[in-house]
Amino acid sequence: MNLSDYILKFLISKKIDNVFLITGGAISFLVDSFSRTKKIKYTCVAHEQAAAMMADAYSRMGPNLSCTMVTSGPGATNLITGIACSWFDSIPAIHITGQVNSYEKQGAQKGTKKTRQVGFQETDIVSITKPITKFSYQLKNPNEIKYILEKASFLAQEGRPGPVVIDIPMDFQKADINPKKLKSFKFKKPKIHKNLNKNLIKLNKLIKKSERPVILLGGGIKISKSENKLENFLKKFNLPIVTTWSGVDLVDHNKSNYIGNVGVYGSRAANFAVQNSDLLLCLGSRLDTRITGGVPKTFARNAKVISVDIDKNELSKQRGLKLFLKINSNLSDFFINYNAKHKKLKFSNLDWLKKCVYWKSKYPIIKKDYFKQKKYTNVYAFFYHLSKLLKKNSTIIADDGGHLTWALQALKVKKGQKFFSAFGNSPMGYAFPASIGASLAQKKSKVICIDGDGSIQINIQEMQTLKSNNLPVKIIVINNNGYGIIKQFQALYLNKRYEASIPKKGVTNPDFKKITRAYGINYNVINKNSDIAKVLKKTLNTNKPEFIEVMIKPDQKIIPKLQFGNPIEDLSPLLSRKEFAENMLVKTVNRSKKIFEAN
Amino acid sequence: MNLSDYILKFLISKKIDNVFLITGGAISFLVDSFSRTKKIKYTCVAHEQAAAMMADAYSRMGPNLSCTMVTSGPGATNLITGIACSWFDSIPAIHITGQVNSYEKQGAQKGTKKTRQVGFQETDIVSITKPITKFSYQLKNPNEIKYILEKASFLAQEGRPGPVVIDIPMDFQKADINPKKLKSFKFKKPKIHKNLNKNLIKLNKLIKKSERPVILLGGGIKISKSENKLENFLKKFNLPIVTTWSGVDLVDHNKSNYIGNVGVYGSRAANFAVQNSDLLLCLGSRLDTRITGGVPKTFARNAKVISVDIDKNELSKQRGLKLFLKINSNLSDFFINYNAKHKKLKFSNLDWLKKCVYWKSKYPIIKKDYFKQKKYTNVYAFFYHLSKLLKKNSTIIADDGGHLTWALQALKVKKGQKFFSAFGNSPMGYAFPASIGASLAQKKSKVICIDGDGSIQINIQEMQTLKSNNLPVKIIVINNNGYGIIKQFQALYLNKRYEASIPKKGVTNPDFKKITRAYGINYNVINKNSDIAKVLKKTLNTNKPEFIEVMIKPDQKIIPKLQFGNPIEDLSPLLSRKEFAENMLVKTVNRSKKIFEAN
Repeated sequence: MNLSDYILKFLISKKIDNVFLITGGAISFLVDSFSRTKKIKYTCVAHEQAAAMMADAYSRMGPNLSCTMVTSGPGATNLITGIACSWFDSIPAIHITGQVNSYEKQGAQKGTKKTRQVGFQETDIVSITKPITKFSYQLKNPNEIKYILEKASFLAQEGRPGPVVIDIPMDFQKADINPKKLKSFKFKKPKIHKNLNKNLIKLNKLIKKSERPVILLGGGIKISKSENKLENFLKKFNLPIVTTWSGVDLVDHNKSNYIGNVGVYGSRAANFAVQNSDLLLCLGSRLDTRITGGVPKTFARNAKVISVDIDKNELSKQRGLKLFLKINSNLSDFFINYNAKHKKLKFSNLDWLKKCVYWKSKYPIIKKDYFKQKKYTNVYAFFYHLSKLLKKNSTIIADDGGHLTWALQALKVKKGQKFFSAFGNSPMGYAFPASIGASLAQKKSKVICIDGDGSIQINIQEMQTLKSNNLPVKIIVINNNGYGIIKQFQALYLNKRYEASIPKKGVTNPDFKKITRAYGINYNVINKNSDIAKVLKKTLNTNKPEFIEVMIKPDQKIIPKLQFGNPIEDLSPLLSRKEFAENMLVKTVNRSKKIFEAN
Repeated sequence: MNLSDYILKFLISKKIDNVFLITGGAISFLVDSFSRTKKIKYTCVAHEQAAAMMADAYSRMGPNLSCTMVTSGPGATNLITGIACSWFDSIPAIHITGQVNSYEKQGAQKGTKKTRQVGFQETDIVSITKPITKFSYQLKNPNEIKYILEKASFLAQEGRPGPVVIDIPMDFQKADINPKKLKSFKFKKPKIHKNLNKNLIKLNKLIKKSERPVILLGGGIKISKSENKLENFLKKFNLPIVTTWSGVDLVDHNKSNYIGNVGVYGSRAANFAVQNSDLLLCLGSRLDTRITGGVPKTFARNAKVISVDIDKNELSKQRGLKLFLKINSNLSDFFINYNAKHKKLKFSNLDWLKKCVYWKSKYPIIKKDYFKQKKYTNVYAFFYHLSKLLKKNSTIIADDGGHLTWALQALKVKKGQKFFSAFGNSPMGYAFPASIGASLAQKKSKVICIDGDGSIQINIQEMQTLKSNNLPVKIIVINNNGYGIIKQFQALYLNKRYEASIPKKGVTNPDFKKITRAYGINYNVINKNSDIAKVLKKTLNTNKPEFIEVMIKPDQKIIPKLQFGNPIEDLSPLLSRKEFAENMLVKTVNRSKKIFEAN
């Protein structure tokens, strides 16, 4: 049996049915194996970067792993930004890179070890990707293949998941192997953390004693595929729930005890809840500074913070934020054990939940006067309508910067909907290829891609992939004619010197209407509020790609937003000090007067 | 003085007048400095990958260095393929990446060292780029800035040049520094290699004794900026000259003793010259397998091979190819010393040069019947006309794969013309952004970009950069409807199973006419031979961008080409054994019967 055929057989056994790839000299033997099986197919993309992002999204959608195949050198290095997306967000993916023949490579022959390059397009992709993968390995001989595939896919999925790279010399790709004689990788099933049950009892006591508890849901719940267990867990309590960005689709926005998204771009309600709480149970969140604010010690500073995280390095990363109880566990084990052993808790301080719910209604993100805006489309009004029209099982993938933030603030995510972005890496250009990958992961399902005018250009070449696969991806480009989040930063901190962020300073958009049509994709535009519902109704339900350009004010701000240095309860625009004080049940800190200089 | 202003001042002192960049949170303070000087400007690109490639080409054109600036995380990782271009081809370039605040980064605070990510978009770009840079460093404190800039730019240019990365935390970018108090980097001027003059005497003796010497010119001559010294050197001899890919523009194609390009895709004439030679003087060539053929020991096997190279690792990388004399020296020192001390050599075996010149006329790359082709444009006929029409000072930048090979085979490069590609890394998508960078390096000069239908899509977003800067870049897309060089490989070795290389197997092209026009760029097409001269005359002389699509046969082959395993004198299609034997003045080796299986 040919080694390449063996690899495809392995991928099929892992339920991967689609590989994202570009062929090339050093990977052509592996790609040739697709001619000998119908159980797995491939999607040709136009840039390897997009392949890695498609695979990342495919993994997020699917039950399992994903895979890319690319050639050596630039094929491999082009993957890196996509690999980093999977690394920071803990997404399992296998990247198979072709390499020069084993006898040609650096160090294979005497005197060649220190040469910059020996074989054609030879590049040390293993060293380059080590810092952003769980495992990065160049095959040393063909007989290792079973061991290495098993090890790589195990490591990609075990513990805190992540991407892996397997680099395979060309000559090995066509080597004969005897599958029966290959060595296997032995792994131990990870044990449940020894203190878990003790900690659960502790946790229960703490919640019972607390007066103003809050539960914070993070992306780790999704990574451990514990969505259903979470639901049973939440039935045990009737407590205020807040979410991080990656946890936003874990709970229906309209659920009665859901308060909102927390953090720098969060809702006032969710931030008041956390900052007034006396106990914060964090489930699967690394408590990034986008959540805690720039000064982590000001976060939940009146609360006993309990964090459940599979990665003990995240539990030790305090940066001033003190964790009262660290539970180092897989979220799945956590829920299983808690749900089995603990009864529904009756919680006496009903005022607390009421207060949180009051904040949610008192401080809505979407304000009535947004709908009255005459010139341009109001971005918050746009997301209001989009929310209303999206079906329950929709998948929404947002890019980064302004449009990600607006989407997270204003979309009312329904139960069953999936919403994600490459949160930790946050590259421009993720959402569009990710939407293609997500659609292909689910039999060409509809996917809503929320993008910006700056970021859509990064992977615009994939319009061709979209068109040739005729996927019902709806590309929504929120156009503010420049880099919105940078403009807001420059307005605030750099005296409106918009270097490299606006058309006058060299950042120009192409004519998206012409570009879209050139690729044979339907173009639509929303110029003003009154266009929103009409255009969305027309485009969301078609069974083909649609491009929807939403023209918003070039200086549209993110509202509210934390000014650097403030604690998260004090979002800008600042409330009157009287109103602010009324919302703080506990002592607040003075906000920094020298917000910017101090940092 | 602000640290960012200091950086710009330093770049100005290095004669960099244009920085390629995309702004972003972590680089915005540095970018803001451009608002305070008029001596240096920036070009906004649409993808950081293109910025790195533009900088690479800017360096190749210019007298000095180039620079990019990008934000942390994806901004930085997007550079990598472009950095690798500079690394493998020894091009000096400074990449400045923004980083999270120094107090936020991994390891800055207790317990954060092993966390995947601490600050937002924090990525360990220093470790990632170490394997492909001469120096990659994160600034530890603002007062290091002078030392590090001096060290980085010195290392980028000294010895064998290459790219460097300087990673600068946000808070340092806005730090106050006192330029007078900053430490400088002290460097010693590299010494001339101690045995150089002895070796030059040896070399001279060897040439005098030889009967069939050949001089091979490589890219190192350009890297050491020794083009003029080379000219004086070549006046000392009247010997056959051959070139590598990167050396092709060092000599006029019509120069009487120039024989051609050598190697796997070389000319029969140049290969016969090298394979029949008894002395081969290699100047600044790493003798890659694209030159030696897949079995280096068969290369120049009847010759005493003398190699002059600045990198001693290249001299030790023999892979079966034995070097008779290794001269570890900068090419510039080599020429200066040789030219000063050695007189013009009279060479008695005039038959040898005559024979080589005979081969050049007997085996032209461009055959007469190519001009008779009726359907599609013949690619060799195309390059014949392009050669004829290109002016003496033209810059031509080719991408990779088929179109690079055809261009190198068929273009008759004139003295004064520049021709290059990212030869060692050979990524799809280099030529187009490189053409933009090269044009900007020379006051918006005309640049000919030779690209393929597959590769142009990789950086197609830069059409917007091209348009908004209105540069006279002529994009020539050689369209063979798929990945040509892969198709030729599949035809030869994989029984014509064209997986992932043709439209039927998932590789489709957009409508380039529509795309080009959507970006507001003039579109032109060459469908057949009779269109060539007409369209080229119309487009080459305009002062604006032009897109020229050249429709060639989907199965157009590269002719001649070495079949894997053969020695380079025996290019395919094979000559009759009789004719072949007549051309071999020395004993040949039997070509491998099991060409493919043997490897």
